[in-house]
Amino acid sequence: MENKLIIGLIGLGTVGSGVVKTLKNFPEIEIKSAAVRNINKKRDVEVQEITDDPFKIVNDPEINVVVEVAGGVDPAFELLKTAIVNKKHIVTANKELLAKHGAELFDLANKYNVAILYEAAVAGGIPIIMPIKTTLQGNKFKKVAGILNGTTNYILTKMEEKNISYQECLKDAQGLGYAEADPTGDVEGFDTMYKIATLANIVFHKRIDISKIYREGITNISAEDIKYANELGYKIKLIALAQSSDDELDVRVHPMLVKKENIISGINNALNAVMLEGHPVGQVMFTGPGAGEFPTASSVVGDILAIKAEYGKCENILPMTRCHHKEKAVQKDILDTKNSYYISITAQNAMGTIGVIGTVCGNNKINLSSVLQKGTEPNGTAHIIVITEECSERDIQNAIEQLKKDSIIINNLIRVM
Amino acid sequence: MENKLIIGLIGLGTVGSGVVKTLKNFPEIEIKSAAVRNINKKRDVEVQEITDDPFKIVNDPEINVVVEVAGGVDPAFELLKTAIVNKKHIVTANKELLAKHGAELFDLANKYNVAILYEAAVAGGIPIIMPIKTTLQGNKFKKVAGILNGTTNYILTKMEEKNISYQECLKDAQGLGYAEADPTGDVEGFDTMYKIATLANIVFHKRIDISKIYREGITNISAEDIKYANELGYKIKLIALAQSSDDELDVRVHPMLVKKENIISGINNALNAVMLEGHPVGQVMFTGPGAGEFPTASSVVGDILAIKAEYGKCENILPMTRCHHKEKAVQKDILDTKNSYYISITAQNAMGTIGVIGTVCGNNKINLSSVLQKGTEPNGTAHIIVITEECSERDIQNAIEQLKKDSIIINNLIRVM
Repeated sequence: MENKLIIGLIGLGTVGSGVVKTLKNFPEIEIKSAAVRNINKKRDVEVQEITDDPFKIVNDPEINVVVEVAGGVDPAFELLKTAIVNKKHIVTANKELLAKHGAELFDLANKYNVAILYEAAVAGGIPIIMPIKTTLQGNKFKKVAGILNGTTNYILTKMEEKNISYQECLKDAQGLGYAEADPTGDVEGFDTMYKIATLANIVFHKRIDISKIYREGITNISAEDIKYANELGYKIKLIALAQSSDDELDVRVHPMLVKKENIISGINNALNAVMLEGHPVGQVMFTGPGAGEFPTASSVVGDILAIKAEYGKCENILPMTRCHHKEKAVQKDILDTKNSYYISITAQNAMGTIGVIGTVCGNNKINLSSVLQKGTEPNGTAHIIVITEECSERDIQNAIEQLKKDSIIINNLIRVM
Repeated sequence: MENKLIIGLIGLGTVGSGVVKTLKNFPEIEIKSAAVRNINKKRDVEVQEITDDPFKIVNDPEINVVVEVAGGVDPAFELLKTAIVNKKHIVTANKELLAKHGAELFDLANKYNVAILYEAAVAGGIPIIMPIKTTLQGNKFKKVAGILNGTTNYILTKMEEKNISYQECLKDAQGLGYAEADPTGDVEGFDTMYKIATLANIVFHKRIDISKIYREGITNISAEDIKYANELGYKIKLIALAQSSDDELDVRVHPMLVKKENIISGINNALNAVMLEGHPVGQVMFTGPGAGEFPTASSVVGDILAIKAEYGKCENILPMTRCHHKEKAVQKDILDTKNSYYISITAQNAMGTIGVIGTVCGNNKINLSSVLQKGTEPNGTAHIIVITEECSERDIQNAIEQLKKDSIIINNLIRVM
């Protein structure tokens, strides 16, 4: 009989519990022990052995696979390095660690011939890492884009449904457990940034420096922006994007207006979506739950079972999942990108303001594709919404500076997909 | 240095050409020879050796992997059996062969310890087989459903866009190369049936008897059906479906009205979509190009590269892809299923007809959820559209028989998703 696969679990929170529950259906996998912060906390799952010393797990000679679902860099980085040196395979959901130290971990894993699987680190329950590394590996990709954070997508969806402000919506989301008490990681786009760094890494076979990823969250999106976008035929989504051109990679995270005809505009609530574009496949898209106890457990358990299938049978376990590239991406500055823009403006004098906008944009080589004046308010001010044709980010930023100098109030500038 | 992987190709049509072109980027893969029907035909790709004897390929001791992209059962079945006995790994795009003889091929492959990969057999370029067998393997699935045929989806999309009949649209599609001269395999749902058989097999780990799959094509869908469905908030799509309940599998292919809120309704033209529902993942969906030279080549090449990654390194190549289940599915009769229905009726006397419909449906335990009378025509006839609540297929068929006896003209009966 084959040996059982013996798991050590680091973290027994939401995802960890889901993993323990799901693995009950797979008696060929044994969870020997779990490391937690507080061993006295009541939990709805049982594990043979619970410890508050995670180093016991990564040093346990009986454990073959370390499953890390605790998150954060410290002590996860040290723990996984130790586990790898001890020749344990790794399954992790830790997007931050992979984005910041993936390169060191992958190199170390290759040195010690162990697999690092991390399907759960990007887009929760959606299979995306494995398809890119197996079925789609014959492709040369041009672009990967999507909605990678459930919390912000939930907030944007509810802002539209209920026509409420970001602040009001955030409070509701926190009450329902969709947003954390400190929501910064989600709403400022950090979580999305970590995920697109990992996706860009495996799609373009280049190492990504997250400090060079342009990042903007959703905290400046107003109920009006969502309403005007809707009238113009768009939804607003927090989009992660990585695209290749002229040997440079353009990697960024920011809100975008997405045309209603684009399926991505219909990905609502806590759902995620990942779109890939390349040759020969063309365009494929994956959608599903981007977070949560069970969807994330689905991906963690899938990775564990993939290791189990080859454990003891192959000199390299899952060789197609190994990361061998070392080249660093040349990452494009956002100022060197081209986009179409939505500009929301408040004007004291609508006709005069439209004239100034036309002149300033013209001077900066920016063509307008539509100008929408929303009815004048009692105090005489009017809202003006401008959509530009594709132009350079440098030019639009110059134009915005000049408009501000002309005392024109810019409420928001949002890129258009 | 590792040995090259040496490929023998059976079929050098559209997909075969795409495979040859794509493999140019992978010099570690050698295509030794290709078998074709007519060796004198001009082609836009070159292969070292071309033969019209495919048995030469499956018996060639130098060839490690046989890639079959010719289609059909005869001689593909004999060829692949011979190749397996000769210990060659198989990559195939042949949905008909897998649906009809997959069980024998999988058993034989297990006996000779070779892999059979067939990502390209279902949904073209969309990664679906590998994700089910790897990342999603921890799930217990309830349902798989989708749009699996590009030709019929293209026809239904164009019928709506241009408001034209099925016949007119088919002609256009044939002219553009989207439909074959004999379109039966596509428009009568055979192609979709083969694909859902394969999906159901791997999703539910049971062998499917295609003679027990209920199948209905799109040839009876009229421009009016599409128009009325649209008014009621639906699109009409050819849906393949397999769902599990009470240890029975309900597997079928027929047109369905799909609510516009459902992402599947927005999958247009030649795109395909596959939706999976299970625990712990919840619902995930995959969309992309379902056919064509390059998308299909993407999947074939992905399979070849997956074999290459493990070739010579594992005692079992890609063990997670092997098919070990032997249990036959208990397949539900369509009459034992429950559905909601769209009924299109032509009536001489609208009010009287609505009365009869109400009575007959009531007698058959069928509740109506909406009745829509479309304006009376010059000759006094009216169109009536009925949507029922969920009821049994047996009851609706009885009701339809009784309505016909009452001289009521039933134009169409379409299930609602």
